[in-house]
Amino acid sequence: MPGSIFGSAFKITTWGESHGRAIGVVIDGCPAGLPVSEKDLQRQLDRRRPGSSEFASRRGEIDKAEIMSGVFNGLTSGTPICVVIFNGDARSRDYEKIKDAFRPSHADYGYFSKYGFRDYRGGGRSSGRETAGRVAAGAVAKLMLEKLDITVNAYVVSIGSAEISRDNFNIDDAAKNPLAMPDMDAYERAAALVRGAMSKGDSVGGVVECVITGVPPGLGEPVFDKLDAVIAHAVMSVGAVKGVEFGVGFGAAKKTGLEHNDQLASADGQIKKLSNNAGGVTGGLSDGSDIVFRAAVKPTPSISPPQKTVNESGENIEIKIEGRHDPVIAPRAAVVVESMAALAVADAVLRNASATMNNLTKLYNQKGGS
Amino acid sequence: MPGSIFGSAFKITTWGESHGRAIGVVIDGCPAGLPVSEKDLQRQLDRRRPGSSEFASRRGEIDKAEIMSGVFNGLTSGTPICVVIFNGDARSRDYEKIKDAFRPSHADYGYFSKYGFRDYRGGGRSSGRETAGRVAAGAVAKLMLEKLDITVNAYVVSIGSAEISRDNFNIDDAAKNPLAMPDMDAYERAAALVRGAMSKGDSVGGVVECVITGVPPGLGEPVFDKLDAVIAHAVMSVGAVKGVEFGVGFGAAKKTGLEHNDQLASADGQIKKLSNNAGGVTGGLSDGSDIVFRAAVKPTPSISPPQKTVNESGENIEIKIEGRHDPVIAPRAAVVVESMAALAVADAVLRNASATMNNLTKLYNQKGGS
Amino acid sequence: MPGSIFGSAFKITTWGESHGRAIGVVIDGCPAGLPVSEKDLQRQLDRRRPGSSEFASRRGEIDKAEIMSGVFNGLTSGTPICVVIFNGDARSRDYEKIKDAFRPSHADYGYFSKYGFRDYRGGGRSSGRETAGRVAAGAVAKLMLEKLDITVNAYVVSIGSAEISRDNFNIDDAAKNPLAMPDMDAYERAAALVRGAMSKGDSVGGVVECVITGVPPGLGEPVFDKLDAVIAHAVMSVGAVKGVEFGVGFGAAKKTGLEHNDQLASADGQIKKLSNNAGGVTGGLSDGSDIVFRAAVKPTPSISPPQKTVNESGENIEIKIEGRHDPVIAPRAAVVVESMAALAVADAVLRNASATMNNLTKLYNQKGGS
Amino acid sequence: MPGSIFGSAFKITTWGESHGRAIGVVIDGCPAGLPVSEKDLQRQLDRRRPGSSEFASRRGEIDKAEIMSGVFNGLTSGTPICVVIFNGDARSRDYEKIKDAFRPSHADYGYFSKYGFRDYRGGGRSSGRETAGRVAAGAVAKLMLEKLDITVNAYVVSIGSAEISRDNFNIDDAAKNPLAMPDMDAYERAAALVRGAMSKGDSVGGVVECVITGVPPGLGEPVFDKLDAVIAHAVMSVGAVKGVEFGVGFGAAKKTGLEHNDQLASADGQIKKLSNNAGGVTGGLSDGSDIVFRAAVKPTPSISPPQKTVNESGENIEIKIEGRHDPVIAPRAAVVVESMAALAVADAVLRNASATMNNLTKLYNQKGGS
Repeated sequence: MPGSIFGSAFKITTWGESHGRAIGVVIDGCPAGLPVSEKDLQRQLDRRRPGSSEFASRRGEIDKAEIMSGVFNGLTSGTPICVVIFNGDARSRDYEKIKDAFRPSHADYGYFSKYGFRDYRGGGRSSGRETAGRVAAGAVAKLMLEKLDITVNAYVVSIGSAEISRDNFNIDDAAKNPLAMPDMDAYERAAALVRGAMSKGDSVGGVVECVITGVPPGLGEPVFDKLDAVIAHAVMSVGAVKGVEFGVGFGAAKKTGLEHNDQLASADGQIKKLSNNAGGVTGGLSDGSDIVFRAAVKPTPSISPPQKTVNESGENIEIKIEGRHDPVIAPRAAVVVESMAALAVADAVLRNASATMNNLTKLYNQKGGS
Repeated sequence: MPGSIFGSAFKITTWGESHGRAIGVVIDGCPAGLPVSEKDLQRQLDRRRPGSSEFASRRGEIDKAEIMSGVFNGLTSGTPICVVIFNGDARSRDYEKIKDAFRPSHADYGYFSKYGFRDYRGGGRSSGRETAGRVAAGAVAKLMLEKLDITVNAYVVSIGSAEISRDNFNIDDAAKNPLAMPDMDAYERAAALVRGAMSKGDSVGGVVECVITGVPPGLGEPVFDKLDAVIAHAVMSVGAVKGVEFGVGFGAAKKTGLEHNDQLASADGQIKKLSNNAGGVTGGLSDGSDIVFRAAVKPTPSISPPQKTVNESGENIEIKIEGRHDPVIAPRAAVVVESMAALAVADAVLRNASATMNNLTKLYNQKGGS
Repeated sequence: MPGSIFGSAFKITTWGESHGRAIGVVIDGCPAGLPVSEKDLQRQLDRRRPGSSEFASRRGEIDKAEIMSGVFNGLTSGTPICVVIFNGDARSRDYEKIKDAFRPSHADYGYFSKYGFRDYRGGGRSSGRETAGRVAAGAVAKLMLEKLDITVNAYVVSIGSAEISRDNFNIDDAAKNPLAMPDMDAYERAAALVRGAMSKGDSVGGVVECVITGVPPGLGEPVFDKLDAVIAHAVMSVGAVKGVEFGVGFGAAKKTGLEHNDQLASADGQIKKLSNNAGGVTGGLSDGSDIVFRAAVKPTPSISPPQKTVNESGENIEIKIEGRHDPVIAPRAAVVVESMAALAVADAVLRNASATMNNLTKLYNQKGGS
Repeated sequence: MPGSIFGSAFKITTWGESHGRAIGVVIDGCPAGLPVSEKDLQRQLDRRRPGSSEFASRRGEIDKAEIMSGVFNGLTSGTPICVVIFNGDARSRDYEKIKDAFRPSHADYGYFSKYGFRDYRGGGRSSGRETAGRVAAGAVAKLMLEKLDITVNAYVVSIGSAEISRDNFNIDDAAKNPLAMPDMDAYERAAALVRGAMSKGDSVGGVVECVITGVPPGLGEPVFDKLDAVIAHAVMSVGAVKGVEFGVGFGAAKKTGLEHNDQLASADGQIKKLSNNAGGVTGGLSDGSDIVFRAAVKPTPSISPPQKTVNESGENIEIKIEGRHDPVIAPRAAVVVESMAALAVADAVLRNASATMNNLTKLYNQKGGS
């Protein structure tokens, strides 16, 4: 059974391999009447584009999103939106040399074990390139959420030992440096650290944080499809992510109930939590506070120092991964994490539309009355 | 759209409220021919039963699992297995006093916002009691996995500041103490810490770890249904869990690629990773190593000290939650985390059955040949 | 992969075998706030109850529906509704004699081929008894639809060669005779025909028609989940149904476009079709007219004359099916067909709730404003 | 909630509008290792191509299938297969004149009611053109089934009053005439009938029959996803289909049990039914006989005689649909019905792979042993 479809109501299917003819995504379930253009998608795609900084690999692709269906006269028509991104600069020959080797900490061995063979060119389906489809779809989800005054923003809070300071936090700064850090001082430290790793052909890990504002209380479905569970699924499905935590996260394990509980107060007809240790999701439903989560992103596994590994024939070999690879994934992963979070929340919004008879009766009457 | 169904091929649906007539689960998709008895389920259910230690609430339920369907002559028949657990000791009157208050860090406010009203008795559907259905289903999943030599074990590695030492690690110890810790020294420290919290009517958090052995490489579906993504979904759907990480998890963010990569070696026709920083899942597919993940469990939100909150009329009030509640959730959550992990892996096994034409042709021929 | 779940938004899972401890259904996705009682379910269940006429088998069950969850203070709470019907009068010994024989035109041989063994008692899971769960769930769907002024009614239009006359059609008559025919003359002819078959231990087939009124235009999802496709799935999943047609159905194949097309006219701000050859579904979406479809129901396969068959050992044998069986399925199938149609339409209504940004913005604003 | 995805294990998503940039399909779940080429797809697509006979509209498209992903070195790789067909000859101006009119017996009014606006160019998403994606995916499903010795063939058995004779039945003839009829005499009569309708700008209906051979007993999932229910869903989702029946179908309603039952016999270790009134599906599972079903196809709704209808402003108008349209849909629908049936059976095969522990243990052992 396949696994390239995400979402229950706002469903996306990504397709495509790193070095095939094209990659893309089909969005099925976006409501009709949303203004969407290729430019909207391109803006987000440009944030994950390789070759845009000294810290990114130089595959010269422009990742041009072409909308093939589902948009008519500038508005979504309620039908599937197919976005295609043709693969331009696909130098498969770089991979010929290592084509039968299992690159350490890549999906190569798993794919080979599962399917009996694999597309060895640039990781094939397991390539980070697949995420371009997610970002295109996430851009549509973000447009939908904006109409409901929900915003989703992800940025990098640490790279290796270089962490941002909450005192210096400035969300606008994240767009001003190639490591997507909302603290220019931390960026400088992180940049030095990344350059150091690059000089050895090595790489570094990092942590992405994502904040979602404007979510009303009550989103998410009780029990298995809790809002945080679905977001965790979405974000952990990004290849390099190894951990996800909400609010104080693993810190909650060290607190007492009295320290951790978010007490409530009402003022001007608005109910607010007095703290946000929960990260905006309590008991699996949004609680009216900002949703805040963090994702641990592993260091790029493609590095140049020699490593022990095995080839498809089962022989022990040594591998040196050549070519230029990103020395750090986290900054480019940020926009992917943001996209996945937007898709999860958009899905929760649509799923919530039929939660009560009250909603249903109103919707139905407005329709019947027209 | 509802959210009480988990799984694609090994599907479960839990139902029931804390103080309704019964709770239960329906398993749809368990293969035919697996020996299953009520005793098998009971063994796991007894591990999460309240009232079994000084550290657990005293709701006197025996959580007796009754199999209503799907098992014939001791074997699963391929049809849905319905398990019912009748609610015995349901003292709804305890909740009358606080019935219109939103308990801090409970799902009360979210449910009320979503549905316009809620079953206030013991949390209703959001009660931890719902997890009994998961444990019953997880017991069946574990039986299925055992036939394939896959084991799943969860235990507590820390409670507040009391952490186990890897040097003292003894998995058998986890069954010998009521805090499910695989280190008797750490247990003593944790027990003191929990007693301290209890004396103030407060509670403490903890971390559950889960190890899955015997999983062959290649389980999990590429892209969105990566094995770690599905396990994260499963585990984060346990109400009190606030974070999930695989292998070195958030530690990966601090490592370089060379430190973090798991190199490979072949010996005696077996391919093995030389380290397991990945926690047994690489690029979303199992990689042949033990799968290891941790879940952060928040402190019990039901505590006796006075807390600020709001009632259904929007008035600011003070709440004191009376009655006896678990001072720590992690030990009872361990069996639930273990159950959810088993369900996720069982699902991955069934989904993998049709991954290749090679598999399919063999299966089909053996059938056709009969 | 299992098949006991129906619906995308209004999802039901039936479980249980004919001679197990109980059968039942879990409804996941019914909106919160709908008044539902056990009496409402019982009313529909009584319509399919065996033992209620000279034309039905005499299994003395009362099919008492017990609601275990999901209803609080008389209203659905948005959580799964589990309905249990305990199996009272289950005489498994009747089946001992033929337990290893494949009854002709029953599912016995298929189940045995699929699973390697089967619950031979009364058909096990393939028994018509499974449909009691569908009827209980359908009763809830009908209550939901009634709030939106949608009604669903099924009745028998022919049994063998005895057909109703459209001139004599009186829907109220269907409740007044045990063959559920809306024409008392046709009933008399059909009753004679059924008695004739009974005297030989034989059985007869029939046709059920279903009319759904009050459906606004635009329900159904384009492409694969067209409203008629989903209803056809629902209705064909009733064991004895061998064909489904909408409007003039197979008659459409004999018409020209000019004869078959339903032209439109507007009057008093209402758009109406001038004919209803389409049966209320055009291009897969409801078109504002009554939805009308018919289902062919095969004669009961359990008959007493000797038949050739094979047993589990592959030996040719002769079988005589003893005991009392319904001489005609169609009248009892009518309420099942009605239930499945109600479930399909309820699902379509919920799925439609998120079709447009216009709907979504209104819903969301009303929520945000509270 | 969207409806452009079909299948549980062999899942397809079609996308695209008649006059957009392209249409296509994504197949997620095709097992790895199946030889597939663009030529294989083209062969099937050519069967539904417009402009290939005097009886088809002359839209000059070549419907060239381009595989964008999921096939590596001529074999499916287990990842999603995206097929794109660019829209060449799309004369949207033909539709300008009638763009705000609801064409009788088209989906126009339903789409407008559902979404508030619609892509009026050639029916947009509701165009028969969407089915090209189904045919491309069906071609892959047919290749998979061929490896398991399952064949799927559909042809036309009647057009208006011109029916084939079973005595003249020759499946090869169906490929030799543009009406896809397996009886050249019937073809001549049908051709005359179609020419007569064309001369008046009118159209005619027909019946498609489909035969599936080589299906072993036990395919299909009990209860809701019975094999016939899923095929009915698949086939009824073809826009022009108004009825589906298996085996003797509606004829079953006129038979007695003794006439209708398919008795069984064993010979040479093979169990066979002595008749096939069931059409190869008994109790929802395949029974080892050929699967045989028929679909009623309505006459083309686009006809030139003046018709009454309403426009988007609610005004009564008269419409004359110009341009050239197919005078009969059934022949081109045959390959679509065949494709949908192949997709449904392929899905059932994959779903069946995990039906028993016996299968699972064998699969797993063979994997573990490698």
